[in-house]
This record gives sequence, structure tokens and C-alpha cells, in this order.
Amino acid sequence: MIPAKLKTAVVGATGYSGLELTRLLLRHPRVETPLLLSRQGEGEGALNLADLFPVLSGNGRYPLQPLSWATLKETGVQLLFLATPHQASRALVPEAVAQGLRVIDLSGAWRLKEAQHRAVYGFQDEGSLTAAELTEKAIYGLPELHRDRIASAAVVANPGCYATSVILALAPLLRAGLVDRERGIISDSKSGVSGAGKEPTARTHFVSVADNLSAYSVFGHRHTGEILEQLGLDAGELIFTPHLLPIPRGILSTIYVHLNREMKPAEVECCFREFYQGQRWVRIFATPRLPEIQFSVNTNYCDIGFCLAEDGRRLVLVSCVDNLLKGAAGQAVQNMNLMYGWEEEEGLA
Amino acid sequence: MIPAKLKTAVVGATGYSGLELTRLLLRHPRVETPLLLSRQGEGEGALNLADLFPVLSGNGRYPLQPLSWATLKETGVQLLFLATPHQASRALVPEAVAQGLRVIDLSGAWRLKEAQHRAVYGFQDEGSLTAAELTEKAIYGLPELHRDRIASAAVVANPGCYATSVILALAPLLRAGLVDRERGIISDSKSGVSGAGKEPTARTHFVSVADNLSAYSVFGHRHTGEILEQLGLDAGELIFTPHLLPIPRGILSTIYVHLNREMKPAEVECCFREFYQGQRWVRIFATPRLPEIQFSVNTNYCDIGFCLAEDGRRLVLVSCVDNLLKGAAGQAVQNMNLMYGWEEEEGLA
Amino acid sequence: MIPAKLKTAVVGATGYSGLELTRLLLRHPRVETPLLLSRQGEGEGALNLADLFPVLSGNGRYPLQPLSWATLKETGVQLLFLATPHQASRALVPEAVAQGLRVIDLSGAWRLKEAQHRAVYGFQDEGSLTAAELTEKAIYGLPELHRDRIASAAVVANPGCYATSVILALAPLLRAGLVDRERGIISDSKSGVSGAGKEPTARTHFVSVADNLSAYSVFGHRHTGEILEQLGLDAGELIFTPHLLPIPRGILSTIYVHLNREMKPAEVECCFREFYQGQRWVRIFATPRLPEIQFSVNTNYCDIGFCLAEDGRRLVLVSCVDNLLKGAAGQAVQNMNLMYGWEEEEGLA
Amino acid sequence: MIPAKLKTAVVGATGYSGLELTRLLLRHPRVETPLLLSRQGEGEGALNLADLFPVLSGNGRYPLQPLSWATLKETGVQLLFLATPHQASRALVPEAVAQGLRVIDLSGAWRLKEAQHRAVYGFQDEGSLTAAELTEKAIYGLPELHRDRIASAAVVANPGCYATSVILALAPLLRAGLVDRERGIISDSKSGVSGAGKEPTARTHFVSVADNLSAYSVFGHRHTGEILEQLGLDAGELIFTPHLLPIPRGILSTIYVHLNREMKPAEVECCFREFYQGQRWVRIFATPRLPEIQFSVNTNYCDIGFCLAEDGRRLVLVSCVDNLLKGAAGQAVQNMNLMYGWEEEEGLA
Repeated sequence: MIPAKLKTAVVGATGYSGLELTRLLLRHPRVETPLLLSRQGEGEGALNLADLFPVLSGNGRYPLQPLSWATLKETGVQLLFLATPHQASRALVPEAVAQGLRVIDLSGAWRLKEAQHRAVYGFQDEGSLTAAELTEKAIYGLPELHRDRIASAAVVANPGCYATSVILALAPLLRAGLVDRERGIISDSKSGVSGAGKEPTARTHFVSVADNLSAYSVFGHRHTGEILEQLGLDAGELIFTPHLLPIPRGILSTIYVHLNREMKPAEVECCFREFYQGQRWVRIFATPRLPEIQFSVNTNYCDIGFCLAEDGRRLVLVSCVDNLLKGAAGQAVQNMNLMYGWEEEEGLA
Repeated sequence: MIPAKLKTAVVGATGYSGLELTRLLLRHPRVETPLLLSRQGEGEGALNLADLFPVLSGNGRYPLQPLSWATLKETGVQLLFLATPHQASRALVPEAVAQGLRVIDLSGAWRLKEAQHRAVYGFQDEGSLTAAELTEKAIYGLPELHRDRIASAAVVANPGCYATSVILALAPLLRAGLVDRERGIISDSKSGVSGAGKEPTARTHFVSVADNLSAYSVFGHRHTGEILEQLGLDAGELIFTPHLLPIPRGILSTIYVHLNREMKPAEVECCFREFYQGQRWVRIFATPRLPEIQFSVNTNYCDIGFCLAEDGRRLVLVSCVDNLLKGAAGQAVQNMNLMYGWEEEEGLA
Repeated sequence: MIPAKLKTAVVGATGYSGLELTRLLLRHPRVETPLLLSRQGEGEGALNLADLFPVLSGNGRYPLQPLSWATLKETGVQLLFLATPHQASRALVPEAVAQGLRVIDLSGAWRLKEAQHRAVYGFQDEGSLTAAELTEKAIYGLPELHRDRIASAAVVANPGCYATSVILALAPLLRAGLVDRERGIISDSKSGVSGAGKEPTARTHFVSVADNLSAYSVFGHRHTGEILEQLGLDAGELIFTPHLLPIPRGILSTIYVHLNREMKPAEVECCFREFYQGQRWVRIFATPRLPEIQFSVNTNYCDIGFCLAEDGRRLVLVSCVDNLLKGAAGQAVQNMNLMYGWEEEEGLA
Repeated sequence: MIPAKLKTAVVGATGYSGLELTRLLLRHPRVETPLLLSRQGEGEGALNLADLFPVLSGNGRYPLQPLSWATLKETGVQLLFLATPHQASRALVPEAVAQGLRVIDLSGAWRLKEAQHRAVYGFQDEGSLTAAELTEKAIYGLPELHRDRIASAAVVANPGCYATSVILALAPLLRAGLVDRERGIISDSKSGVSGAGKEPTARTHFVSVADNLSAYSVFGHRHTGEILEQLGLDAGELIFTPHLLPIPRGILSTIYVHLNREMKPAEVECCFREFYQGQRWVRIFATPRLPEIQFSVNTNYCDIGFCLAEDGRRLVLVSCVDNLLKGAAGQAVQNMNLMYGWEEEEGLA
């Protein structure tokens, strides 16, 4: 007997992550065509997703509908994806959980446990019991670190794109106690423009971005908190500097650490290979090869490589992800696969 | 005795053409630092142009001021550049002329003589005497065609960027009666994104433009009217198709004509060389070399090349300009040079 | 009983088309992992395809082997893909056919029936009986035009990328006798750089291409012959002008035709829809929407749209394909699907 | 009396730096049209520079000539620019000095005093007296650090592009003793493709670079030596990581230092402003503004900005130059201006 397919809905399918997620769900063998919920699906001018993204044309119709709990109930949706701004996710998740839905939230709304890190988001509901409870309950959706807890989670907080590239590169060394944290860790990260969202702004105008590179949010980017929490670092132990690249998608993080004992390249490689043994979506590069953005774009891989100084102490890590796949929608599907007991590569290969 | 420098003002220095024009005027040896007039120069938060365009930083301050006829009078401004939307130019020129100012308008407001072509702009003042009179009086600012009339003009209507590339490529052949107009002329034109203006829109978002090419305004682009008028063509004799290129600046027009007699490549080249004999800012390419966008970007040149079929009848022209220079601000400076009797290359070489 | 998977080999997997083809075959449900044959697979330094294209890393090993007919025989290869230069294909196909292999050749070696068009390729074997026979026998692999003959073909000559975009846009109108051929057809086509091949040259250097656009091979591009043959046009009836775009992949052709009777947009659309009724890989855009390169990149679609002048006679067509998919490797897989009686979308959706 | 113009020659005008230098010299008011010397100027097929770079067309002819000491003597050349590979510069400079010419060498041949750093260049002449003497005599051509010695130098070793961006950003803080060198300095630098030279390679192919970012030569880039020497650092105190950006030109270095005492942003800014007081070609950005590549491209500026952590200790510097101007040809002209007692901005503004 063929098992029934999972019923899902996507809120915010009209953004870059939401579109990417929708495309993945449409070809996922265990999932029904998702309900697409959006403010642009309301009223007489209700849109079809293919009107916004003609790349979808010709494969069927993708009508957008207004968000309604009644509709979700009637149609039997079991899993709700939120590809919404964090304020919206903050408001929607409590109700979704109350309705008995499982949720994968792609925003930053539920990723942070510590109030000091959450402060940058300025939530209105900081004092509420529900918010506090859900903050506790939400699982940070990085499968390579929290596989088991994701499997049974009611709410998965899908990681930030930058955070994914930085955490996965650092976790093996930090967990093994190999990093001299006092000397400080630096992640010099560079992202394509889709990471800045679909809203047209002076900053995302083609003429502003093309032939350019710029650093931004130095010492103040929102993803810093989740990197610190997930890696167990103090704020003073990490500098994270994002840059805007003149490319549509992809992230490369160049990460600098001091090891607290002299190592050989083979030992470093071994540390990574052991940590990621059996992990479907992490690739370790043997030195001297290094990941490049092109290698992981349009895949769900996080690629990790490194270069060790002759002194055996100073280590440069290079980590790449596609910000819309392993950095967002692909990781959300990987989390869904875990939550329903499917192979982690289903719908992603 | 050193002649006094010309006093000028620029309205709209915060757009791409206005900035380019300001940069040219700042280094022009016969022009004083221009007054920069803008709505962004009003009130307490009045901006400095270098705040908007840090490329200008470090060479002085460029305060923006609100537009005021009194200020223009007091400071003795003689020449007013308008780098404003066409509605604004339509409103400002009559007053400027009344105040005794000469004007170079970079918008489409005063380029067209025939009402049928002006219709696409939808001006509110179509019935007014002043508008009618100024429409008559304004000189189309293409120096290679109207040098003498520009020299004495009160109002110069600076050509459109696409129009410059198309008109200059076709004028020699049409004037010589060599084109079989009945078979139709096609200009397949491609422009960088700065031609679409500085306003952030879904269409100018980096992710929409990068790795892409799109045709737009087919059979309906505003520059069509000025091409027809300047070349004396009927609407049915020209198809003009603009495309948006994933580059910041530059235009390439590929133009298809049928000659009405069999010619040799040397004759075609000769036709161009004679027509543009002594013209500082047009370069003719000898076949088989063809202009490319890179060759003319950051210069005031219009580059023209061609390829003739073996039948000696079918001719492909390739014409390139920098849309912000020969296609806008550079041409405006060239027009100013003519209006004040200076060498045409002053401030442009 | 599960049918045995097809055994295939790819010669030239280290070029852009060969790599794309290999990636498609690797995930095709009815095909075994293909043998990868290349000069770079010879001797001690034999390469793994993932060494050249790290994007393949982590999914297995892809050893390159030298080309050997004995190996092909022993391993039971049934279908041979040639992603080789046309001279190599010209040499390899006769032997492959003699060995009883079916062949899909991605080069221009066997696409042309008429000697006048083949002349541009300068083959050494023009006088040979085998070459003449195979020229007759080879089927032009455009499924939308030659589905039945492809199904039973021994040798499929996979179409050129530009040619695919032009032929599919024009065939419906020409077959319906709607085009005024005497007035001439123009295809102004623009391609991404992967179409120029992987060889590093002055022309493919990043600094030469970026921020640029250039026309090339005007009146002399090799794809002209196949367009003329497939559409039944005389050389004087078509101008085909290729341009090099600063993007990695994708083609957009803007095509100009005169209709020989006045038509309405709905009639034009209807002509296209009827012609491509049931065709999986052609999408027709309803006016005023037009295809853009982004819409078809990374898909096997050929997208076709149009804009009709008010006179109902002058028609602008816009046609887009991904030059490496519908323009090369995707079409090759589509042809394979036809040759073995599978659904045309297998391995391509 | 108008002083006679300087007679110069450029060896290697056909590379990117050589072309840029030639363009600057052609418009420099105190310099005659330079002699252009190149192997591509030899024999019957001797080239004109405009054949290679059509952007130069129409402004005169630029014939390339073979390098000949006799010609240099006859034409009275006083200053020789070498835009040649370092091996060629190593061979040419001794003879040029023997001939009484002053030299500005744009290669890495004479930048390094310490043998350990020179080792990466593998010179054949390491043991020769002349080489040793010239190594001593050559002045590192960074005007902001060595103005006086450059003025009287016979041989100026023009700095590397990356090195310029890193040294100028760090010199003020290091000279003031503000940097905790033991904690290590990191420069994460990113460059456009023209920095990789004009040779077409797999690495400079458009398809390899576009939509990509890659780190290279980690712990092994040749510019490391000059940074260390100029800043008086030990090899273990600096990590310099270059990256290849998908843009034609421009460098951005993000530099990480620990201050050895707590500072305020205003103090840091003050340190920079004092150090570069009166320097024409360095711009300091007041926090929170940061330089971007676009701001300095096509100028001779080095732009420097910074961001200080709340702890007043951890400092991120951002430094930008145009690799072909302040990073090569512009700096060479600035050095020439110093050598002949002209204003430092002559020919560069």
C-alpha cells in the first residue's frame, strides 16, 4: 500500500525562500502539492505563483490563497512552513501549535534561547507565557547537530543562511576542544543578493550591487546570536562580518581560528570527517582544495575546506552553502524529512 | 585676461544622469562649480551629494539646495541643466526661459515636434501657447545633426540614450537616400540598467537582472518618436525593440536595413566617414571590426560599425554609446560647449 | 520485472555540454551510470570528473577512461553520446555505427544535408561513401519536428543551441504559410558564455565579457545552415546575428517577421498553441508577457512569446532556451527518451 | 617658458596595468606621448595598441615598437616604466640603470629587501652584485610612506595592489603602537579579475568566475612579503587571504586587529586623519560609513573606514583601492609626479 502523501502549506511563497521551498515541495515524492498562502492571494486580484515567477509556468497552476486557519483544518494540512518575516512568524506560530499543526519556521523568530540575543529582533511578546514556552520548545533546525530532537519537534526554527555556513564549519573543532577561544574567532562571510530579500531597495538595485563589494552590519548582524548560542561562545569570542556579493545566490565564509595545540592537516581533516561521518549534506574538502560558491549553488550541500599554516596553529576554514537551499528552503525540507522519518535526501538529490 | 567661468545649475543631481553631469561639470575647465538643486536639498536634513554618492567624497563638499528662482538670479546662473523627470521639465522650462536662462533639458519633455509622438508623454499643457511656442523653439540636442541651431538655442532638448545610438547609425545612409525604407528598418537595442533610472523597483532588483536578458516596451518605447522625427521616418518603417542587459551602463543597437542598391563595404564605410568627417565624438569602425559596449563605456563616443551581406544589399549596423555620457550627460556637456563657442571636447576628453 | 537499465557512454564529458549531459544521465531513472570517455582519462594521471568539476564531489566517483571500442563492447554500451568537436564526431560516428551502437551526437558534424551549408565545417571526408550515407541517415534531433524519425534513428544529430531557439519560434508560422518570406526574417540572438565552450581564450576571459555585449559572426555563423534547412528557407531570406552576453548560460532570440496577412494576437497565439499541442518542453507565453532568459535557465523548456504591431503584420517573436539543456544536453536526453520509448520528460523534470 | 615635457617609455603596454598606465600618460599634461615597447611590436605584424584595445581608437595611433636600448637613447627617454612580469623586470632594470634611465617597475621584482620574502619569486640572479645593490637601492613606491625617498629614487618598485590596500590601512595604527601584534592581524582581501592578469586561463574564464567567489593562495600569496616588510611584522603576525571576485576591477580588504588599549571610535578616526593629513589620495571614512569597491574604482584613492566593537578593542578595518590605479598604474603616475617634483594629483584627478 502506498502511504498517503503529506499535506503541507507554505505561508509566504512569494519571497525568494518561499518560492524555492515551493519548488522543492512540488517535486518531493512524499508530499502533496502544498497550499500556498499569502496576502497576495486575497480578494479578486488573487495571484497565481506563476504570475510572479514565470519560471514555474507550464507545469500546472499555483493559486495563492489567503491565510485561514479554517482552510488549513478543512484541507487536513499537517505541516506548516512559514517563509514570513520574523514578526509574522512570532504571531503565527502560537496559533498554529494550538491548532495541532507542526511548524517549520524559516525566519529568525524562534531560533534564540537567550534574551540578550533575541533583543535585536524587538519582539512585542517577550513577556507572554506562550512565547516563553514556545521559545523553549522550538528546536534549532540544523540536522547535523540536532537530528534526534528535530525528529520529534512540534516547532522547528530553521537556521539562518550565514549561521549555517559558520556553525557547520566550526562545530567539529569546538566540540573537540581544539580551538583557542581566547584568541578569538573571525568569520568573514560573503553572500549573494537573494539573501537580502526580494524587496526592492537602494541597496538591492542592480547598479548598487554590480561591480561592487561592501561590508555591512559589522558587529551587529542578527545571525550572530544563533552562531554564539549553537557554538556555546561568548559574544567577545567571535567577530562575524557579512559582505554583499554581486551574485544572485551563494555564501562563502572564510573563518579564522587558532588551534590550542599544534596539528597536522591530516588531523584537522580527520576531525571533520569523523564529525560528519554519514551526514548526507556536508562535504569535506581535502587540503589543498577549497570550496567555491559555484560548487554548492543549486545543491543542498554545505562544503567545508581548510588551510593550515606551517605553524600548525593558525587555521583558515572555508565554508560554502547556497543561501536559499542549505541556507533556507533545502534545510527546511531536510528537517521535514527528519520529522516524518524519511531519508534525509528525499526531494533534495 | 582669463574669461570668467560659466555659472551653471543642475536640477536633479541625485539621479544617475544628474550625478554624471555634475561630475563632468566639476572638472570642466570653463565652468564654475555648479549649484545643485534638488528636493533632497530642502529643510533641515538637506543632503550633500557626497552623502548619496560616496564616490564624490574627499574632493570638496557638494551641498544640495532647494530649487529657487531667486537663488538662481542672485548667484548669476546663466545655464540651467534639468536632469528631472519629463513632467518636471515640462513645468520648469517655461519659467526658466522667462527668467532669461538658457536650458539644457535631459528629459523627453521638449524633444518632440509632432503631437502624435508627444502623446505617449501625456503632458497636461498640450493646449497652452507657451508650451506650443517652446516646443517649436527647443532644439534637438544632437550636435552631429544640429550643430548650428544648438549654438544659438535658448532651450536644448538633449536626446534620449537609445535614440542617440539609433539616429547616429542611420542618419548617414538615410540622408544619402541609400535605404529601402519600404522594407522596414529594425533596431534591436540593448541597454544597461542605469538607463532604467535609480528608483528601486522589482525590475531593477539585482536578482531580477543578473544572469538575465529581457525585451520590453516592444512597439511602445518612448524613444521611438524622436527616432522617427529626426530620421524623417513613418511609424510603419521602423521597429525598435529595447532589451535590459545585466550590466550597469552602455547601449548596443544592432540595426538592420536593406539598401536600395547593391553596394560594396568600402562604399558604406565611405558614406559614414564623409558624413562624420571632423566630428569629434563619432568613431567609424572599418569592417570586419565591430563596436562593443566596453569600447565606448566611460567615453563620450558613439561607435558605429557595420557588416554587409554578400548580396551587397542587406546591412547590419552596430552602434554603441555610454547611456550616461553620449546618451545623456556627456552629450549635454557637448551641447553646452557648442552653446558657448568652446571646443566640442572640452571637459570630455 | 524491472527492466534493465540502459548502458550509455559519453565521449567528451569534460566540456560544458558533456558535463551537463553526465549530470542528467546520473540522475536519469532508466539509465546506468554512464561510461565517461575522454583523452583526459588516459594514462597514469587519469582524472576523475569530480576533479574537474567539484560540484560533482561527494556523490560518488566518476573516473574518466580512454575511448576504446573494445571497452564499449565488453561493457555492453548500447547508446553513445558524443560531446566532442565536430571533427572528432565526424571521425567517430562511422565506426560507432559499424559497431552497432546508436549515437546521439551533440556537435554540428551530422546536422546538415546540403553540401553548401556543410562547407563551413570543412570536413575532410566529403567524398566518402560512408560519410554521404550517414549524412543521409542521421536524423536532426529536434523532437518537436521529427519525433517519429528520431524514435527509430541510429544516429541523431542533436541541434545547435541557437538553432533550437530560432527554429522552434519560426516553424509554426512558416509551416502555416503565414510569413512573408520575401521581406526577410531576422533573428537577433544573444547567448551566455558557456555557448562559446570551455577553452580559455581572449574572448572568454572574464574581463573581456563582463560589463560588455558584442555581436559576432554576422552573416557567417555555423548554425545558420541548420536553421535554413530545417525551415526550408533560402539563404537570402534570413539574417541571423549572434551576440555574446555577460552571463554564464541562456539564449534569447528576438525574431522579426512580416506576416503575409493581417492577423490578431489571438490568432498568432492560437497558431503556436496548436502547433505545440501536447509538447512537453515548449511553453507559449500569452501576449503581453514575454519570455526572459531567467525563466528557462536550468530547465529543458523552450519558451516562446510574441508581440504584434497594431498593423497586424509586423511580428516580434521572443524565444528562450538554456543553451546547455534544451540547447544541448537536455535535448539529447529528450532524444534518448524518444529512441527508447520512454516518456519525454524522464530525467528532465 | 613652458618646460619641455618628460619623455617616457612603457614596456608591456599590452597588459592590463600597462594599458591603464598608457592611458594615464596619454592625458598627463607634463608628459609626452610615451614610447610603447612590446614583443608584439616586433617585425612585420607589429601591432598598434588600439588594435588590442579598441577603447583607444579614434584618438591617434599607438604603434608598438620592439624594446631597444638604442631607440630609448635616440629618442631621449628619461623615465622607463616596466609593466612586465617580474622575471623580465629583474633582467631589464640593471641595464636600464646602467643606461642612466630612471625606472618605475610595476612588478614584484624589486620590492623586497629580505631574502626570505624574495624566495617566492625564485630569481636567477640572487647571487649577483648588481642585483644585491639594486635591491638595496630600489625604493618601495608607496608615496604616503616614502615620499622623500621616492623623489630622489633611481628605481621605484611600485607596490602590489593587495599590498597597497593592506599597508595603508594598517600603517597608522602600527606606527602609533596601537596594535596588539601578538594576537595576530588578519586581512581578508577580495580582488576583481583584472588583478589576475590578461592571460586566458581556466581560472579567468568567464564561466569560472561569474556567480562565484573563491579563496586562493591562502598562507602563500606573493604580496605577503611586502606587507610584512613595510609594516615591520613577523610572518606569524599576519594572515593574508586573497579571494577572486566576479567583477573586473577593485579590491576590498577587511582587516581584523586587536588594539592594545581600549579606544573610542573618535580616537581611531583621529589616528587615521592625522597620519594621512594632507595626503591627496587617501580618504578616511567616518564611522559608521564604510568604503565600498564602487567608491574608489576608476579613481586613484585608497579609501579607509573602520568599525570598533563595543569593547573598544576589536577593530575591523575596510580598505578599498582600484587595483589598476592606486594598486598599479595610478600609483606609478603618482610616483612619477613625486620624482619630477610635480603636484601629486597631476594627470590623476
